[in-house]
Amino acid sequence: MSLNRLSTLFLPSVENQLCDIIDKAAGENGRAQEMRTMLRYHLGLDDPSADASQRGKRIRPLILLLVTSAAGGDWKTGLPAAASVELIHNFSLIHDDIQDHSQLRRGRPTVWVKWGESQAINAGDAMFTLAQDVLLDLQDHVPAEVVLRASRVLQRACLALTQGQFLDLSYESRNDLDVEDYWPMVNGKTAALLSACTEIGALISETEIEICRAYRRFGRNLGLAFQALDDLLGIWGDAALTGKSTESDLLTGKKSLPVLYAIGENGAFARRWVQGPISVDEVAQLADQLKAEGAHEFTQACALDLTERSLTALEAAKPTGEAGVALRQLAEKLLSRHA
Amino acid sequence: MSLNRLSTLFLPSVENQLCDIIDKAAGENGRAQEMRTMLRYHLGLDDPSADASQRGKRIRPLILLLVTSAAGGDWKTGLPAAASVELIHNFSLIHDDIQDHSQLRRGRPTVWVKWGESQAINAGDAMFTLAQDVLLDLQDHVPAEVVLRASRVLQRACLALTQGQFLDLSYESRNDLDVEDYWPMVNGKTAALLSACTEIGALISETEIEICRAYRRFGRNLGLAFQALDDLLGIWGDAALTGKSTESDLLTGKKSLPVLYAIGENGAFARRWVQGPISVDEVAQLADQLKAEGAHEFTQACALDLTERSLTALEAAKPTGEAGVALRQLAEKLLSRHA
Repeated sequence: MSLNRLSTLFLPSVENQLCDIIDKAAGENGRAQEMRTMLRYHLGLDDPSADASQRGKRIRPLILLLVTSAAGGDWKTGLPAAASVELIHNFSLIHDDIQDHSQLRRGRPTVWVKWGESQAINAGDAMFTLAQDVLLDLQDHVPAEVVLRASRVLQRACLALTQGQFLDLSYESRNDLDVEDYWPMVNGKTAALLSACTEIGALISETEIEICRAYRRFGRNLGLAFQALDDLLGIWGDAALTGKSTESDLLTGKKSLPVLYAIGENGAFARRWVQGPISVDEVAQLADQLKAEGAHEFTQACALDLTERSLTALEAAKPTGEAGVALRQLAEKLLSRHA
Repeated sequence: MSLNRLSTLFLPSVENQLCDIIDKAAGENGRAQEMRTMLRYHLGLDDPSADASQRGKRIRPLILLLVTSAAGGDWKTGLPAAASVELIHNFSLIHDDIQDHSQLRRGRPTVWVKWGESQAINAGDAMFTLAQDVLLDLQDHVPAEVVLRASRVLQRACLALTQGQFLDLSYESRNDLDVEDYWPMVNGKTAALLSACTEIGALISETEIEICRAYRRFGRNLGLAFQALDDLLGIWGDAALTGKSTESDLLTGKKSLPVLYAIGENGAFARRWVQGPISVDEVAQLADQLKAEGAHEFTQACALDLTERSLTALEAAKPTGEAGVALRQLAEKLLSRHA
């Protein structure tokens, strides 16, 4: 299968690129060695035997390199950008974990739990800087104007990321929300960086502007569809419903799409929701209630519509070669999870 | 006086540039309006009557624009870079205030005090992104290759900033330090960004590489000299010694140059220091003790040496015109404070 073959071909180079750039964190005289250790730990680079569950799936660099190749470029050209988007994603996770007081990330204690909040804020800042720095390495193989265009796309995605995070944090204390409040948040938190991956991948291949735009739409809708599906699984997925109710999004108070839909409808679920945290015992019954109020159907319809838009945009981008086949496989894999 | 005239000419344009870029934080549909409010507040842009004590002195953009002009460029060309370095400085202050639990900044409650830690971390991230974004606007007037070079210089300074902050935070719990531990920390926390200001200012003017290097040395040594002087004043300055002992660096436990010198000497001061926090009543006596152990003389000698290096580098850069005169005046103003 093309996706497996190309993942196996691309990802070791991404890991090498990540290791090289992270080594810069130690500084000239190595005094900041421990900062390098923190960044390697967060990325799962400290353990050679670590698999994707500890390292993260590197979906963003993979998609970027697949697009570069499918749009007619040499995937190796895209490696600095691939490392950059992975570092952006991970810088935001380091800060998210502090903001959400999350104890665990990929099954291990989070950076702030191990090194304290102050050092974790700073480690995130260092990773953000390294993401900006490595992107500039594109200029070894790509014209300077193209590098600047890629950097602009990245900055817009980062700003959208902070806007999405701002909304997410501000929603915590609000119950006057509905589905209209959902899209700007997930657009920032999930879709903006994915659309930057696909757009930068295409920019690097120096293909025509219409193709770049189609890849951007592909990434954006892929991100939105993925998130809608994730929200569906977070309430009605096997792990959330059967046996492991503790994994239900209903317990964390997450303002997911089904929940925002039901809050907007202002029925029995909404009345229960505003009364405060939901207990494990209530999870199954409230998931049923949500379904009865139409939240499952609505979310599924959104996910389907976005999936179609995503695949239509991918076809409009006319992806070529084995990477083109792999991109279709990846999109189908990400979007065919069921609940 | 050239410095006053050029400050009055340059800084209103810097403020406009800052306002324009910060407006981007609100996002396309204005949902992140409150994030824009946070960033404007931190920069003192929310109050039209605010002076330098509330806004900060904008030293970094001023130096950058003076160098651009003194190296033969048009200062207006440098405005995006001037805004960028000011935003970098202020992003680091927003995060510093969280890390140090500082309640006040420029006489007003800090961002985290007003909006909470999570939103403050995110606001700093947004400001960092905007700093990267506005730098790209240089391409309207400068070749793409030069913009990439300026961006590289900025990334190195940002990485040094996080390395300096890493060291500063890690020193909090350590007493096995001496003056050798001081320089890497202040190089990162103070000198790296100032040397980026002077180097980027020169790069933009497209002057020869030797001149750029001389400006970089000027900025670096200016930053180090400034910090050494600041440390001197933090213990033996008027505010620290007379009447306002509460402003003494000895109270905050700051690992300043005189303190690190004395810790390395391991005399009576060092023995008192390791026993824990110093009280207001002890400040005057311990400042005398430090002086008796040679810390004042040592720090003053360092400040003088660095001041000379800074001024020598400035002459090597052959600054021209009114901006050249103003640069000399600014350096003298920053480096002639006495304790």
